[in-house]
Amino acid sequence: MSKKQIDEAEIDVEFVERMRHTLSHVMAAAIREMYPDAKFGIGPAIDDGFYYDIDFGDTKISETDLPRIEKKMRGLIQRHLPMTRREVSREEAMNWAVAEKQDLKKELIEELPADTTISFYDLGDVFSDLCKGPHVENTDECGPFKLVRVAGAYWRGDEKRQMLTRIYGVAFETEGELEAYLKRQEEAKARDHRKLGRELDLFTFSDLVGAGLPLFTPRGTVLRDLLADYSLSLRKRAGFGRVWTPHITKVDLYKTSGHYAKFGDELFMVHSQVNGEEFAMKPMNCPHHTQIFASKPRTYKEMPVRYMEPTTDYRDEKTGELGGLSRVRSLTQDDSHVFCRSTQIKEEIHNLVSIVKEFYGSMGMKLRARLSYRNDEDKYLGDAKLWEMAQGQIREAAEENGLDYFEMEGEAAFYGPKIDFMAEDAIGREHQVATIQLDFVQPERFGLEFVNEKGEKERPVMIHHATLGSIERFMSVFIEHTAGWFPFWSAPEQVRILTVNDQVADYVGEIRAVLEGVILEKPLAHNELRFTIDDSSESLGKKIRRATEMKIPCVLIVGPKDAEAKEVSVRLRDKEEKVKLSELAEYLKEL
Amino acid sequence: MSKKQIDEAEIDVEFVERMRHTLSHVMAAAIREMYPDAKFGIGPAIDDGFYYDIDFGDTKISETDLPRIEKKMRGLIQRHLPMTRREVSREEAMNWAVAEKQDLKKELIEELPADTTISFYDLGDVFSDLCKGPHVENTDECGPFKLVRVAGAYWRGDEKRQMLTRIYGVAFETEGELEAYLKRQEEAKARDHRKLGRELDLFTFSDLVGAGLPLFTPRGTVLRDLLADYSLSLRKRAGFGRVWTPHITKVDLYKTSGHYAKFGDELFMVHSQVNGEEFAMKPMNCPHHTQIFASKPRTYKEMPVRYMEPTTDYRDEKTGELGGLSRVRSLTQDDSHVFCRSTQIKEEIHNLVSIVKEFYGSMGMKLRARLSYRNDEDKYLGDAKLWEMAQGQIREAAEENGLDYFEMEGEAAFYGPKIDFMAEDAIGREHQVATIQLDFVQPERFGLEFVNEKGEKERPVMIHHATLGSIERFMSVFIEHTAGWFPFWSAPEQVRILTVNDQVADYVGEIRAVLEGVILEKPLAHNELRFTIDDSSESLGKKIRRATEMKIPCVLIVGPKDAEAKEVSVRLRDKEEKVKLSELAEYLKEL
Repeated sequence: MSKKQIDEAEIDVEFVERMRHTLSHVMAAAIREMYPDAKFGIGPAIDDGFYYDIDFGDTKISETDLPRIEKKMRGLIQRHLPMTRREVSREEAMNWAVAEKQDLKKELIEELPADTTISFYDLGDVFSDLCKGPHVENTDECGPFKLVRVAGAYWRGDEKRQMLTRIYGVAFETEGELEAYLKRQEEAKARDHRKLGRELDLFTFSDLVGAGLPLFTPRGTVLRDLLADYSLSLRKRAGFGRVWTPHITKVDLYKTSGHYAKFGDELFMVHSQVNGEEFAMKPMNCPHHTQIFASKPRTYKEMPVRYMEPTTDYRDEKTGELGGLSRVRSLTQDDSHVFCRSTQIKEEIHNLVSIVKEFYGSMGMKLRARLSYRNDEDKYLGDAKLWEMAQGQIREAAEENGLDYFEMEGEAAFYGPKIDFMAEDAIGREHQVATIQLDFVQPERFGLEFVNEKGEKERPVMIHHATLGSIERFMSVFIEHTAGWFPFWSAPEQVRILTVNDQVADYVGEIRAVLEGVILEKPLAHNELRFTIDDSSESLGKKIRRATEMKIPCVLIVGPKDAEAKEVSVRLRDKEEKVKLSELAEYLKEL
Repeated sequence: MSKKQIDEAEIDVEFVERMRHTLSHVMAAAIREMYPDAKFGIGPAIDDGFYYDIDFGDTKISETDLPRIEKKMRGLIQRHLPMTRREVSREEAMNWAVAEKQDLKKELIEELPADTTISFYDLGDVFSDLCKGPHVENTDECGPFKLVRVAGAYWRGDEKRQMLTRIYGVAFETEGELEAYLKRQEEAKARDHRKLGRELDLFTFSDLVGAGLPLFTPRGTVLRDLLADYSLSLRKRAGFGRVWTPHITKVDLYKTSGHYAKFGDELFMVHSQVNGEEFAMKPMNCPHHTQIFASKPRTYKEMPVRYMEPTTDYRDEKTGELGGLSRVRSLTQDDSHVFCRSTQIKEEIHNLVSIVKEFYGSMGMKLRARLSYRNDEDKYLGDAKLWEMAQGQIREAAEENGLDYFEMEGEAAFYGPKIDFMAEDAIGREHQVATIQLDFVQPERFGLEFVNEKGEKERPVMIHHATLGSIERFMSVFIEHTAGWFPFWSAPEQVRILTVNDQVADYVGEIRAVLEGVILEKPLAHNELRFTIDDSSESLGKKIRRATEMKIPCVLIVGPKDAEAKEVSVRLRDKEEKVKLSELAEYLKEL
């Protein structure tokens, strides 16, 4: 169990939820006093806090109004108001809604089933609200809170109904928790990859190209390629051969794989205007890879056959759901497929788990794994004995790799059991990343086979794997995890030389010659050093500021004294030191 | 001028064409004697020879029938038959067609305009044919020929009309030319990249995926990536930064660029089933790249800005035109775009020409360049002075690079002058490969600009460049150019160790350790050696045969004596030699 889990388990979820719910009523009470014409929708407790959806009529509410509302709430809480439940008849409820001109509540009451017990909660004598509860007993019990955000929300979530104002608050049992939460939020905001993507010139969007379709600048592409190359290098070492497949296909491929029946209406369809042919953009790569396996006869001597391909898939996400790199329409998967014998499952999973561990270890991210098995339902395809054996092999591979894992019955895909990995970032957020999925169904559907030792035809098992998941989504995680201070090996610009004045030009030439010869070998081999020289006539202070803004991990400051002493002043994020030119190459290789 | 051009200039095109045309009549005469019911369509001279389209009724003609027809033709030729022109009235012509039951000729006569002079050619008294000519005067003049191929052809090229049998012959003025031609044909056949692609396991097609959409196997992907990486490495050295753009876009991008108006109905259109949005698959990358340039304000200090991206474009080719990798629907361009000042054109072109020269030099292919300029027509967009200056800069860059070039007025694109490169392969065929195109129009359409020294806004010039052109098409050229015997650096499997028996297992371990440390640096840097070990129990002869079939450039044969002497028997394509294990790494680096 990770620390985060233990923390969660220690919290009395029931209490904190009731308390948050009460705070939403307290907020509504405060607002009613300040805006007597406000009409209230619903106001539930949510993760971390609460919200209330309110119709303010023509009054515009913004985040600058929140401190006043908060102050009014604190005033109410200090009055030790009791929270009392009261059951009423439908008629009483309707009379209340009409008298109070609460149209939204009236609509809610009208829709309640005939046999429902209708309850109200009274906040002392200040505010009554139609509510199922439960709540805490007195405002004394309310923990520390803060109103944080104003958003728009359609009434009943229906975009044809009016837009209400949703006010979000956060609330915890202790000041410490609230502070920690707010600090984490602030950190997350400062680390927002959309903001950093712009500031560090990593990627951009164009209205002419469309939402969810990022374009990567030279700096962003360096980062992108390094992450992809590192993932490729780990898999190459594990025996994977890179393949290449086109981004479109006849739908016949997905009819055969079975994807068309399940997801056919979510595909991006491609239409030929020349001859009317129909294609689909690939949303995944497994069916394409089966066709390479199937392109020639195979024998047991070749097994397992391992393919990898970083390639872009297209998924038709709704525009409203797109944001930065977290959710895109063009997602590049660092996809892998293993075709193996059923007896080879454990070793192959072991192989893949090692890759995942090494990758996320290098990234400084802690991993948890969820092993998903079948249950007794009959929705699972493939031989039950094969399932049992495979699940055993998965568990053994997890054990032997010392994974921090938990098991879930009934969470497997219908085509096979799987392992999903969650990585924890620098501010404690967990992100779903790598996956290893067994597949007993596609080899059957595509009629894949190899000839075994006895000369008989045998069906392979297929294993799907992605180390990063989607490169775009992983980049969003990685940018926020590092706050843009990328580890030395992966920084688009690793070193920047700053000149103190123009007397050092010759010496900068010597340094350049040294840097041009530096090849980094860890964690990715054969990585030429990426450096630039800022010898502009601006002040050193300004040059340093610019390098810091771009989060260059290693800045070399060169003045006449350095030239004389044949050394450079190295400025890293956390320290400064002098390094002899003769030792600079080795120094950089160890960063 | 290349040798090929001189050869072509020396041929009397007029005579050889007449001679070939006469041979098509001689073939028709022979066929009429052998198949009296044959009905003749048209029989022209073509490049390298001639053909005749013939309706053989229910009789099936195959290539096995050609020697007999050829023999009969030789018999006719030996009779010194004169070829005589004769003018006839429309009525005479029609009477002839009806009497001879030549329905196809009848149709042709019917369609002749009223004022046409109708002529026949009589081959002695053997065969008369409706024909405009011209011909040689006597069969004595016919040069050496050979019937080579039978194909189907729709009458009048209309797929709704009957399928005729087309018989192709080749003919030249001298035996030497015919022999050279046939040899080249044979060589081309042996080198056919579709055949080699299968034999060397480089790529495959799947009916489920579709025509023109190749899938690359691990071996083919190694080759593909090495060629692309080499091209990238040359451009990286020249200051290009790699970018990444998605494969689809809103059509707004092409409406702005102007491509939509010109090529809108040739685009692969992409349809979202989720929300009805329309996208297009990109058939080129320039408009996407303008959006990266436009993503932030630019100053003269940054110019030129250079982007490169190997990325797959989709073009909607007709299924009938697809074949192997020469023409595909998914074509990966090793695309580059420079945004520069008008004063920087020459240096940038110089840069690009150097890259092209170095790349094709490494490939052992001779280059010719076509410089295409504007003429006086008013279809050209952009400032005339800019054109003049740019054309001058292009010519200078060609001169200074010692290019074998020729100039064509009126061949420029409407948006700017260009250089196209043709590379000659090992059997003398020329292939259009790299291109450098100036573009004065897109920067205007996208409103691209940078701030110059005076603080004014200035418009950049755009230069389009592809070194390989499309990677797929270049691979087809490269596979045929090398006949599958790829240069050592680019071979998917560079070295294969063959064991003589199982006593050498330990020694093979030592060799493996040496090979694992070999990094090749030319022409592509940081290239890990790709080797395999064949220690199967099969005979050495069989192992050698298998390695030769796969065209492995370097085979290391290891027997007990080699182990004792700490050496290996190296078998290259053209020689065998012993190399000391201690010298093996250096030896391989020089291959």
